[in-house]
Amino acid sequence: MSDITQRFSTGAPQNLEERFASRAAHMKPSEIRSLFAVASRPEIVSLAGGMPNLSALPMGMMADVVDNLIRNNGQEALQYGNGQGHPKLREQICEVMALEGIRANPDDVLVTTGSQQALDLISRIFLDPQDVVLVEAPSYVGALGTFHQYEASVVHVETDEDGLVPTALAEAIKTVRATGRKIKFLYTIPNYQNPSGVLLPASRRTEILSICREAGIFVVEDNPYGLLGFDKPSPNAMRAEDSENVIYLGSFSKTIAPGLRVGWALVPPSLKEKLVIASESSILCPSNFTQLTISSYLANQPWRDQIASFCELYKERRDVMLESLDEYFPATAKWTKPGGGFYVWVTLPPEIDTTALMPKAIVAKVAYVPGTAFYADGFGSWSLRLSYCYPTPERIREGVKALGGVIKQEMANRKGFELKG
Amino acid sequence: MSDITQRFSTGAPQNLEERFASRAAHMKPSEIRSLFAVASRPEIVSLAGGMPNLSALPMGMMADVVDNLIRNNGQEALQYGNGQGHPKLREQICEVMALEGIRANPDDVLVTTGSQQALDLISRIFLDPQDVVLVEAPSYVGALGTFHQYEASVVHVETDEDGLVPTALAEAIKTVRATGRKIKFLYTIPNYQNPSGVLLPASRRTEILSICREAGIFVVEDNPYGLLGFDKPSPNAMRAEDSENVIYLGSFSKTIAPGLRVGWALVPPSLKEKLVIASESSILCPSNFTQLTISSYLANQPWRDQIASFCELYKERRDVMLESLDEYFPATAKWTKPGGGFYVWVTLPPEIDTTALMPKAIVAKVAYVPGTAFYADGFGSWSLRLSYCYPTPERIREGVKALGGVIKQEMANRKGFELKG
Repeated sequence: MSDITQRFSTGAPQNLEERFASRAAHMKPSEIRSLFAVASRPEIVSLAGGMPNLSALPMGMMADVVDNLIRNNGQEALQYGNGQGHPKLREQICEVMALEGIRANPDDVLVTTGSQQALDLISRIFLDPQDVVLVEAPSYVGALGTFHQYEASVVHVETDEDGLVPTALAEAIKTVRATGRKIKFLYTIPNYQNPSGVLLPASRRTEILSICREAGIFVVEDNPYGLLGFDKPSPNAMRAEDSENVIYLGSFSKTIAPGLRVGWALVPPSLKEKLVIASESSILCPSNFTQLTISSYLANQPWRDQIASFCELYKERRDVMLESLDEYFPATAKWTKPGGGFYVWVTLPPEIDTTALMPKAIVAKVAYVPGTAFYADGFGSWSLRLSYCYPTPERIREGVKALGGVIKQEMANRKGFELKG
Repeated sequence: MSDITQRFSTGAPQNLEERFASRAAHMKPSEIRSLFAVASRPEIVSLAGGMPNLSALPMGMMADVVDNLIRNNGQEALQYGNGQGHPKLREQICEVMALEGIRANPDDVLVTTGSQQALDLISRIFLDPQDVVLVEAPSYVGALGTFHQYEASVVHVETDEDGLVPTALAEAIKTVRATGRKIKFLYTIPNYQNPSGVLLPASRRTEILSICREAGIFVVEDNPYGLLGFDKPSPNAMRAEDSENVIYLGSFSKTIAPGLRVGWALVPPSLKEKLVIASESSILCPSNFTQLTISSYLANQPWRDQIASFCELYKERRDVMLESLDEYFPATAKWTKPGGGFYVWVTLPPEIDTTALMPKAIVAKVAYVPGTAFYADGFGSWSLRLSYCYPTPERIREGVKALGGVIKQEMANRKGFELKG
């Protein structure tokens, strides 16, 4: 044993696990991860991912935007920027939010590296281990993962075809508080929810806001899909009705392009300082280059028309998916009928395990996300999420047909077992 | 009192502070923050900031790079990407690191939103409250802030004109462990350190690596300035000598441009999975657009020549700063003589409080960063950091002259008080 080893042996960690923080125990690969690796093969029709379809984005125009940006304002675009986000873009973000009834001050906007970073920062300022976050049942897998890393407890609240059920929310608050645990916020996606595709009607928004305000629980309103309503505009954002108790998350990932990684949080003034400090600690500042690309695009291009083109494209795909489900899925299956966004949520008979079914689906050249991914508690085993955003209509029809076949076969096999048993 | 209020009054938080996580108590504005607001006025010569000087970056060429990228590969550049970072860029990052003697596998590289995000992720996987991080005395203010947010204790280790002192490091490890606390890693900036500007010689690198390896302490080697040596190349990176115990952080912020927010971590394979999961939870994926901009720049432009141009520009400014310090600063002041990077560290007589001096400096139209910013323990009150990276040589001379005058006046005032007292 060397002198050095002798010197330091006291208190030295014995193995790698001892060297990690306790929260690192929650950093384990999800089932989604290995699944996406397989689903990205070109021969598979992926109804799994949530990638926006950029075929409607005019690339020549985007190229002009970035070329001009560098030539005319390169010194600023390529330099460090403001930790809270570029002031010009924060003003434009307020104009975008005005489309959903929000009146906001640019000074209350924090620009983030996609709205995932906003979720992370909100978790960081609010969540101690064992704190409770209320979420819809089911809810966005990426949010659940972040809450989990902050060692919070996720409690799902019942939903129906109109989204979160207010009486169930009130009940959940009482039940959790009876156990002495702290509820830090409700996380909700009111428009074309991920994964369910459902829309929360205006009357429920008011009711939920009132419940949360009175209970002293912040509402985190995550709204990436609000401008992607196909048939009619979405109701006003919840933030439009309550500027003091709602933390609003927006994103350009679905209305412009996700590769720029520009999202934002609009927050009550009392939270802003801590969120900016947390963000600076996390990334120093968001990219001036991607922020000014968005800013220039918003200032110089017909972005509302562009969103309308995206809606056309997604509406066609939604229609094909719903028609195909009618045609190819068993009569005992049920699914949501989204008025916008990217997703359809399918509920099968409870004896079908959608995680166990995945390998068979892959063999049939189709992929989806099993329902359990969207629950923190193991529920959802007979549900699945289908996304229609990315594939062509032909591929969507092909994928739904293949998956319908796999499900029908599985049901027939189960029936066979039951008869034999 | 409404029904709802009655329903939820039990367990409802009484005030905002109660609603935050315990770590949020550490999210307070620093002295640097208010200072930067003042120092950014155009009439002030700022020797405070660490903004790289982009005047040497050919903007027409950068504009061509991004224009071609969108036209030829827009569907990928503007789409979601790989959580670990773009595979092509990870290969090129390995070529960049080879310049400092590192042999690395692209599979062990994680691309981050600036190396600040890497600092955040490393803190996230390693730091429980009260864990100890060893750092140089003084050390980078942004790293100290992050460690602080994760509620770690920062312990400074003595440095001299050759950087971290190995015997002091060994002593610090023993002292901390004697108190029963866990040391998670040593955070070090071996090349042209921020804020001191000093370079750690090769022999000390070997000695420090050996101490940390034997003690079971990871070395976090932060190396944003390694390629910015003016007089001769830097010694090999510490990671070149030890691939198992060193977490290496790199950045394109100082060699290309910080507005792209592209940095990276090269990590031992045993840490990669947790870091990727932590990063996905934090930002989902880094920007394909900024990553592919860097990738295309590295593939198609003479980037080594470009770094040489940056070095020329900074060397000229370093020389002017050192000459001006000789000319205008009092004989009792001492300062480092950096061979690269951005910073000079000035030590004044101990009776001068550089934080208290700032308002007088601002009146004299010059700004710097007071020394206490670079210590977690209140030390450094008679030191200050000057940066020469951004202003013109003329402005540097003007700023140093003004600051020298302020310091001399302060010393004369003190002398006067002492004589009177």
